[in-house]
Amino acid sequence: MCELLGMSANVPTDICFSFAGLRARGGRTGPHKDGWGMAMYRDKDVWAIHDPRPSADSDMAEVMSNTSLKCDIVISHIRQANVGAVSLLNTHPFSRMLWEETWTYAHNGQLEDSSALPVDDYAPLGNTDSERAFCWILSQLKQRFSDQKPDLDLLSATLFELATQLKERGVFNMMLSDGQRLYCFCTTKLHWITRRAPFRKASLSDEDVTIDFKEVTTDKDVVTVIVTQPLTADEVWQQMQEGELCVFEGGEVVAQIKP
Amino acid sequence: MCELLGMSANVPTDICFSFAGLRARGGRTGPHKDGWGMAMYRDKDVWAIHDPRPSADSDMAEVMSNTSLKCDIVISHIRQANVGAVSLLNTHPFSRMLWEETWTYAHNGQLEDSSALPVDDYAPLGNTDSERAFCWILSQLKQRFSDQKPDLDLLSATLFELATQLKERGVFNMMLSDGQRLYCFCTTKLHWITRRAPFRKASLSDEDVTIDFKEVTTDKDVVTVIVTQPLTADEVWQQMQEGELCVFEGGEVVAQIKP
Repeated sequence: MCELLGMSANVPTDICFSFAGLRARGGRTGPHKDGWGMAMYRDKDVWAIHDPRPSADSDMAEVMSNTSLKCDIVISHIRQANVGAVSLLNTHPFSRMLWEETWTYAHNGQLEDSSALPVDDYAPLGNTDSERAFCWILSQLKQRFSDQKPDLDLLSATLFELATQLKERGVFNMMLSDGQRLYCFCTTKLHWITRRAPFRKASLSDEDVTIDFKEVTTDKDVVTVIVTQPLTADEVWQQMQEGELCVFEGGEVVAQIKP
Repeated sequence: MCELLGMSANVPTDICFSFAGLRARGGRTGPHKDGWGMAMYRDKDVWAIHDPRPSADSDMAEVMSNTSLKCDIVISHIRQANVGAVSLLNTHPFSRMLWEETWTYAHNGQLEDSSALPVDDYAPLGNTDSERAFCWILSQLKQRFSDQKPDLDLLSATLFELATQLKERGVFNMMLSDGQRLYCFCTTKLHWITRRAPFRKASLSDEDVTIDFKEVTTDKDVVTVIVTQPLTADEVWQQMQEGELCVFEGGEVVAQIKP
């Protein structure tokens, strides 16, 4: 299994505090030692890092947990390999173009017989069940909507339907983004928290690090962090339900579908 | 056009001095503002960064030009788009698996009618002529040698032949690596320098930065840097010939084929 970390904010916000907590689980406080990756959106541009080395040991991950890079949306993943070797091409998040947008995606879980999923134009580069499922989702979207991106309600309903189908094959906790919204689907474990004024202090569970969000935010900031397991012990995290889709934009929930 | 930067060293060595020089050309001292990327090998593991934003403005590039990350081999690229939109998936270096190794590649130049190149199992994700040529090279290698990687001489001769074919379509300056060696092919511009004891000072042409290599090396270090245009004005760089293939391993030239 793996762990996921996502962020959606209404102002460019850095993820290094949360990533420092996640990173410790990549070989130190957790077993997810088979690589890590991050996709970071700002003004719809997305840049990415992929590193098949354990995040707890990686010098690159060390840099990322100490560096403030302001983003609107982040998807990060630390991997514990089950299907597919440990390699750059099997390292999440995966990216593809659809509707002239760069979509990125990461998955936690395991899917049975994923090779049966038809992927049309979206061939996987690696050999994970996760990337195959991503290619299948995009193929389905392309097939159903051709060149026209549907509106939020229709897209959310479709993603809910597709993710629910994948859930029948096993565990499918997913984060997906088009650079505007962060679409999250939960099969087993996803927790989230929205931080807004009045901001307060929080301490990581996995590292001896405390941050006072008041010092790094303004009153208008709204920042949502979504993660497999809560990163802080002194805040209240919401748990997503089994089979629930939750869509975030600018730090706010803009769509929510429960089974 | 674009600019390339490569490194091959016999001890893990950081590239930040050279990258700082290259980065300035990505929108400040040069016109290559359509993204940048880096693949970094250490002990055959490879991690990568892809950023479609101008390297001169990118906060991520700023971090990379100031951070010491020790690598055996590096391939870096700053892009000035001619074929293919500016996007994450069109950002070099590209990566694929072959013979259970992760191969990375970057290209400077432009190729006519690259869509005619058959790519078999190696479908491009983006729509650049560069990635198409990479997929063609790997398809050809796979077709000719199946599952058995050829020895250095045969592989070098084959890459020389394939690159020479691509050169007939236009400009094909290339860097390619399997994590052990760095294969460079020159159509128009590639320069290289091997630094070894006694080390001395060098100053970047594009930035007001000087480094004393004596302070950051040992007597046994051998470090070769290959680049489109020399990065320093106070050192002697060798110019590769038109149509030449040069292969580096552990900082040394291990194969060289001239037309």
